Amino acid sequence: MTDLPACESLLLRREDSRLYVTLNRPETRNALSGDMVGELLSVIDAIEGDRSIRTVILRGADGTFCAGGDIRGFKESFEAPKPAGADKDPIAVNNRRFGDFLIRWNRLPQTVVAVIEGAAFGGGLGLSCVNDVAIAKADTRFALSETGLGIPPAQIAPFVVQRLGLTTARRLMLTGARFDGRHAHEIGLVHFVCDDDAALDATLTNVLNGIGRCAPGANAATKDILHSLNDLPLTDVLDRAADHFASQMRGPEGREGVAAFLEKRRAAWVEKLE
Amino acid sequence: MTDLPACESLLLRREDSRLYVTLNRPETRNALSGDMVGELLSVIDAIEGDRSIRTVILRGADGTFCAGGDIRGFKESFEAPKPAGADKDPIAVNNRRFGDFLIRWNRLPQTVVAVIEGAAFGGGLGLSCVNDVAIAKADTRFALSETGLGIPPAQIAPFVVQRLGLTTARRLMLTGARFDGRHAHEIGLVHFVCDDDAALDATLTNVLNGIGRCAPGANAATKDILHSLNDLPLTDVLDRAADHFASQMRGPEGREGVAAFLEKRRAAWVEKLE
Amino acid sequence: MTDLPACESLLLRREDSRLYVTLNRPETRNALSGDMVGELLSVIDAIEGDRSIRTVILRGADGTFCAGGDIRGFKESFEAPKPAGADKDPIAVNNRRFGDFLIRWNRLPQTVVAVIEGAAFGGGLGLSCVNDVAIAKADTRFALSETGLGIPPAQIAPFVVQRLGLTTARRLMLTGARFDGRHAHEIGLVHFVCDDDAALDATLTNVLNGIGRCAPGANAATKDILHSLNDLPLTDVLDRAADHFASQMRGPEGREGVAAFLEKRRAAWVEKLE
Repeated sequence: MTDLPACESLLLRREDSRLYVTLNRPETRNALSGDMVGELLSVIDAIEGDRSIRTVILRGADGTFCAGGDIRGFKESFEAPKPAGADKDPIAVNNRRFGDFLIRWNRLPQTVVAVIEGAAFGGGLGLSCVNDVAIAKADTRFALSETGLGIPPAQIAPFVVQRLGLTTARRLMLTGARFDGRHAHEIGLVHFVCDDDAALDATLTNVLNGIGRCAPGANAATKDILHSLNDLPLTDVLDRAADHFASQMRGPEGREGVAAFLEKRRAAWVEKLE
Repeated sequence: MTDLPACESLLLRREDSRLYVTLNRPETRNALSGDMVGELLSVIDAIEGDRSIRTVILRGADGTFCAGGDIRGFKESFEAPKPAGADKDPIAVNNRRFGDFLIRWNRLPQTVVAVIEGAAFGGGLGLSCVNDVAIAKADTRFALSETGLGIPPAQIAPFVVQRLGLTTARRLMLTGARFDGRHAHEIGLVHFVCDDDAALDATLTNVLNGIGRCAPGANAATKDILHSLNDLPLTDVLDRAADHFASQMRGPEGREGVAAFLEKRRAAWVEKLE
Repeated sequence: MTDLPACESLLLRREDSRLYVTLNRPETRNALSGDMVGELLSVIDAIEGDRSIRTVILRGADGTFCAGGDIRGFKESFEAPKPAGADKDPIAVNNRRFGDFLIRWNRLPQTVVAVIEGAAFGGGLGLSCVNDVAIAKADTRFALSETGLGIPPAQIAPFVVQRLGLTTARRLMLTGARFDGRHAHEIGLVHFVCDDDAALDATLTNVLNGIGRCAPGANAATKDILHSLNDLPLTDVLDRAADHFASQMRGPEGREGVAAFLEKRRAAWVEKLE
């Protein structure tokens, strides 16, 4: 079993094949500090090779997903002068590291579920866009608040466009519009919207049971194929997909899955919550 | 008039400028065998240069579109050992051939209409994504069932993403969710959803009459421009589009279309069903 | 203050930081002539470096947005013989110039709002796709009418696909379907649909006030990041975004925006209509 890293701004809890990751700086409404991003990166390092962790559930402590960047931290950063000899402005370097995190989190081999409540602003909205299933409470408040602060939505921009399309992304970024979970569902930011905690719990259980019916290696191969669409020409993606298909088919999951289907029984990997 | 190939797993019927292609292995709910894919490829070979066939209508026999891959065939394939000296696993080679078919079918110069009833699972759902107009019955059952069988949705993945976007595609692939024609319409998998056969027939007639008003060469040029977006940088697409525009404008269709417009009459190419 | 070009087919009016551009050939329902495109290009030349113009509002005179290409002009163009020695058919050259205009208008550093009433056909529908916020009257008539005239939607095709996705674009192009503002909203062609002029005015004011809260340099940087997604690989986009982030953060807008946030006051750049 993988050793999970010690974290100060995250709570980590493992249950069977599921890892619950909770952003845990409630005094700042879980604002994304550099330390928090560093800890999220250490979680990726720890789990990405581990197929016994099949699902990652991300949420925020105290009923708030993530209020975005750390604005007091912004002030400190621009009050520190740009170092004379440095190749790169440290503000750009830090910002760019968040982008590397988003790429890796988006491509985690595990199936990632985000549960979004309370608020998702700026970087928190960006973090809402990198997952396989997103579930929001209807009263969650969303906004791309950056341009109202004089800065662009930077590292999150490609992921927001990937999720919402350019048409919706540009409106939200350039007008700073605020909206709720119901609108987030209409524009495709989240897959499910729930009126209350009971509905949210039921939806989450349902989603986890869906993931539990899918073979973990097949899901990891699927995510690799999907994300290779950003890197490779179509015919190369299809070549890679054919290799994944053959190796899954000949491997233990393909054999078990086909046998279970023909024998009309559950495959060995199926997990079901109460 | 083009000679149509002799087929065992397809029914082909020509009416005026329309070619009706019916997947016809009802004993397997029209599962996609290697032979069926080979016959579909031979249809493409026969018709792609023939502008007298303007429209292709694809559907499945006995009220079922396509139940997906041939799972008994899967078992046979992995029970055959991987040939020792071969460059490529034959499972990968066969899978990859389906991808080549999907590319070519998606890019057929004819306007392609899919009529989707009964079931569209796995590869059948993929086949639902490569057409110009898709019409589904509301009670059609859809699912990306691959990962529940231990394999990834492989060749179809790029086409599912092209149609649904990454956000919806990843949810459906990684949870194996089942859904109906109404949801298929909500997520953009199909253009029209119909409650019953009468509504489906009326919608199909309406769509065919729309296609009948468009010039066949102009439609073929349009599809070439659209699909070149996957191959070329934007400025090259615009160059290619400008050449198509000039050659259509100077050609018989442009002259007839502009004349008909100015004379307030129907263009010579217009076809209308009862 | 920027000198605005003298125009015959456009009306230009400046109010504070807003430039109102009105297509003004009502006798042709504002059809896109070569002269009109030339004047739109001269507007871009005049304003693209000017951050004092923050917003551009595009609409059509006499309650019609734009009826598309100039079909009488089409007739003249193909009746003129293709010059014997020329490298390129002048029809292609003229068409291609419209594509260059669409690229540049789509990427204007200013935030662009389109108000769409009456009709948006062909090139007018294409022009509806290159803006940051689009507002339509519910009774506006839309159609991609090109293929019914024997020509492909050429220069507009990439921009229509960017806005609607390939699935919807191909249906509309290949069937010539007519639809109204309400359907335009459902398929994502416009962001807002309004039943009457009062609702349209209120929506426009609301959108302009949203833009007025966003810093102009931050909005211009955001548009640069968004459009670089078409030109650059993801990691290069993220590098560029990090540089924009750092320079906005250290610049006057970032300092003012963060200070205003911490002091709970409006930033200096905020503009608000009555």
